[in-house]
Amino acid sequence: MKTEPRTLPGFMELLPDEQILFNQIKEKIENTYQKFGFLPLDTPIIELSEVLLAKAGGETEKQIYRFTKGETDLSLRFDLTVPLSKYVAKNYGNLSFPFRRYQIGKVYRGERAQKGRYREFYQCDIDIIGDGELDIINDAELPSVIYTIFKELGFDNFTICINNRKILNGLFESLGQKENSTEILRIIDKIDKIGKKAVEEELSKLNLDKENIEKIMKFIEITGTSDDKLKQLEDLKINNETYNLGLEELKQVVKNVRLFGVPEQNFKVDLTIARGLDYYTGTVYETFLNDYREIGSVCSGGRYDNLAEYYTDKKLPGVGISIGLTRLFYKLNELKLISAKKKSISNILIVPMIENLEKPIELATDLRKIGVNTEIFLNNKK
Amino acid sequence: MKTEPRTLPGFMELLPDEQILFNQIKEKIENTYQKFGFLPLDTPIIELSEVLLAKAGGETEKQIYRFTKGETDLSLRFDLTVPLSKYVAKNYGNLSFPFRRYQIGKVYRGERAQKGRYREFYQCDIDIIGDGELDIINDAELPSVIYTIFKELGFDNFTICINNRKILNGLFESLGQKENSTEILRIIDKIDKIGKKAVEEELSKLNLDKENIEKIMKFIEITGTSDDKLKQLEDLKINNETYNLGLEELKQVVKNVRLFGVPEQNFKVDLTIARGLDYYTGTVYETFLNDYREIGSVCSGGRYDNLAEYYTDKKLPGVGISIGLTRLFYKLNELKLISAKKKSISNILIVPMIENLEKPIELATDLRKIGVNTEIFLNNKK
Repeated sequence: MKTEPRTLPGFMELLPDEQILFNQIKEKIENTYQKFGFLPLDTPIIELSEVLLAKAGGETEKQIYRFTKGETDLSLRFDLTVPLSKYVAKNYGNLSFPFRRYQIGKVYRGERAQKGRYREFYQCDIDIIGDGELDIINDAELPSVIYTIFKELGFDNFTICINNRKILNGLFESLGQKENSTEILRIIDKIDKIGKKAVEEELSKLNLDKENIEKIMKFIEITGTSDDKLKQLEDLKINNETYNLGLEELKQVVKNVRLFGVPEQNFKVDLTIARGLDYYTGTVYETFLNDYREIGSVCSGGRYDNLAEYYTDKKLPGVGISIGLTRLFYKLNELKLISAKKKSISNILIVPMIENLEKPIELATDLRKIGVNTEIFLNNKK
Repeated sequence: MKTEPRTLPGFMELLPDEQILFNQIKEKIENTYQKFGFLPLDTPIIELSEVLLAKAGGETEKQIYRFTKGETDLSLRFDLTVPLSKYVAKNYGNLSFPFRRYQIGKVYRGERAQKGRYREFYQCDIDIIGDGELDIINDAELPSVIYTIFKELGFDNFTICINNRKILNGLFESLGQKENSTEILRIIDKIDKIGKKAVEEELSKLNLDKENIEKIMKFIEITGTSDDKLKQLEDLKINNETYNLGLEELKQVVKNVRLFGVPEQNFKVDLTIARGLDYYTGTVYETFLNDYREIGSVCSGGRYDNLAEYYTDKKLPGVGISIGLTRLFYKLNELKLISAKKKSISNILIVPMIENLEKPIELATDLRKIGVNTEIFLNNKK
């Protein structure tokens, strides 16, 4: 009786040609992270449930691969941020800050299996963690990393959208809608999907009066270049501390993103991105391949006030981005955007046509010594 | 209430300096595998228990991380060979043979936690799989890969020990001890640990008569250079097909290992290595750092007749080696054999001493463009 050799649904397993491509992309991302001076990290895939789920809840917790081994309650990591929090809290005394780390690794979420949805997938993360404080200029460096990566991957027409959550939150505060801000953000976030009319309708269900809805709509309809938008944000003359702090930060980020060499056509202030997640507290990023908007954001992230509050009293603000590599690869491959670049791992294949293998093997050894990947076809029988 | 940030015992989690070192070693291994034309593979860490444990049993099965998610019985891989078997059986029609693949990844074994023993650890494997048959010259190429890796890692004084299990098996056959061969191999394997006397005693418990024990001891005491040993094996004039096939293979391997450029001082025929495992059927390898024998073999492997018999009727002979990287790193680090090579991921750290960051950032961007890893220290407050 043979067992049928099969792989679980939702788990990517590639043929060698595709794997080579996948690895090339992974390597370009890793090389760029290193080029910007981020340090490598490799944390376990299995953690104590108590540690890993200190914060989690709701939807996240349901997706966790959780089990016991012996007496121990274990979980597989579902992202690279929680392990980073644990790591920084645990090793605080041995790290120098700002702590810049990258981690590329598999994470696990038991989502409903469907095409292009993975239960095991690679995340490629960088974060910069400050000790007590972290200068806003760090928020301007990350778009430069994103820019370098997508240029390296052969794309030109992409846009890094930048926003600051304090601006929106401050606006809501000034309208007396602070309590509703998460809900309002969630609704605004859908404007590309459901349109202006539906957003207005959903907002009106929240007990927002007409005037306030108009202000919000006016705000999110601010248009023009990044500088135009900054100007219009200023012109709104919102008398609110959070708002003005956010605006000041956004100005700083835009100014310095230019300094970091990101061309005007590859970034913009986009006041509609809010990154649903409560997690972020300042700058937020999303990145779109403009010819393939349907893929959604290919690199997202932002600023958070306190990385490791569940593990330590130390205040550890940070800013980071993440690329969901497995899904990105699936999409790029499906759209045949990377197939042309396929190549073998070997530069040279030697096929000896003679009985005496001495010369072919010597040649292969010499080629490898000078750095040429070389395979010899070693089946004597033709 | 804060959760104590801690990592599971038996799970390696390194500080950045050590992680850089670890990655450098991993990269050297990977680069060498590529240099020899092996194709990358990346299989899931989670598999169906039914598939993963088709063969397993006894000690292995006890150590497995096994659990259910929904209705599905899942296990974490405990090596990279079983996933390879599954992969080759599953994708047989899409692979070209001999199929040469490398895989570097984490595997899981719930061993008793003790110093230097890991429950999550990296294996770095290469295998060459033939379709129906696989020429013996492939067995001679792998020592050349091992040699290149340990030279790359900065070692000179290491020995790749080579043997062929057919020789021993054939000897036992010729002595009418075929049924006891696994047990005899297990005992012989301990000669370095328990000595000649104890081996003889253990053998006598197996109902072996004095004459046969003498023959076995005489055999395993064959000494001299590799060529001396081959000569002595021939001189024994054992009239057994398996024995003579094994001797012929070993001769071929030794001859061709030289052809592959492995110097005389870095390999030898060692008739005492038997690789306890039943798994191997021909050539076997173990590699020792001669100044640090206490580490045990740092790279082992061998030839097997049938990779995927639990999944397919196709006959798929192969030969492979494996490096247990996590344990190797732990040992090398403990012995301070690699600490001198520690370095930062960045070639340059720019610390701006002026308010205006334009020039420092421009400099960093330019340096990165020409491939220099560059970090800017971006905390304005001194």
